[in-house]
Amino acid sequence: MKKRPRGINKRSPVSGYRCHGRIWVEKEGRTFLGYGRVILLENIRDLGSISKAAKAMKMSYKHAWDLINSMNNQAATPLVITSKGGKGGGGARLTEAGQKAVTEFKDLYERLSTFMKEETEKRNYSRSP
Amino acid sequence: MKKRPRGINKRSPVSGYRCHGRIWVEKEGRTFLGYGRVILLENIRDLGSISKAAKAMKMSYKHAWDLINSMNNQAATPLVITSKGGKGGGGARLTEAGQKAVTEFKDLYERLSTFMKEETEKRNYSRSP
Repeated sequence: MKKRPRGINKRSPVSGYRCHGRIWVEKEGRTFLGYGRVILLENIRDLGSISKAAKAMKMSYKHAWDLINSMNNQAATPLVITSKGGKGGGGARLTEAGQKAVTEFKDLYERLSTFMKEETEKRNYSRSP
Repeated sequence: MKKRPRGINKRSPVSGYRCHGRIWVEKEGRTFLGYGRVILLENIRDLGSISKAAKAMKMSYKHAWDLINSMNNQAATPLVITSKGGKGGGGARLTEAGQKAVTEFKDLYERLSTFMKEETEKRNYSRSP
């Protein structure tokens, strides 16, 4: 199970000041991808079920579905597809587009993390202000 | 009067997807500087008064004071100093450290803005996912 951090943060080696950042992708003013949504996608990929993924994140099943519908409706092709049947209520899996969305967002997040680290080190907040 | 944006956002020339980001500086887990705080500092510098600065931002006087105390207590030297007297209840001004905090944070914000712009253009969300 993957947890959601409060934000990217990098402690300066020199002082107690840290740069923090958050990043997300919107479409027409509405959130399309953010860190929490991407963790949900990863959990669906790893657990094969929306209910298990939601439970692992202590998220309500309804909220998980709302997020998935939001992503699927905004993407050119759906990120998650579900299958009927079984007593667990069927399964769910990521599409190729879903996996690509995960990979690309995590790459973006990594680059932001590097940016924050460099900024924290560069500015050396112990000397300023 | 300067307004506070919801976050940095860069529209892709190709699609409706946009990267958004926020950045802030913490010390020991508490916010030290963020965009709203920096706008408050700028308004104090430009208007010479905490009450005028708060009013310009539709912020309560108490909330403005809480933010200023938070910044002053966390900084090595205070960012804002006040003077008594006058029927307006005295004035307020930025210290050199306060102006430096404004300049450095705005520079950081500009660099994040450039980062977001490059990410939005680079990833071309119309093709993916």
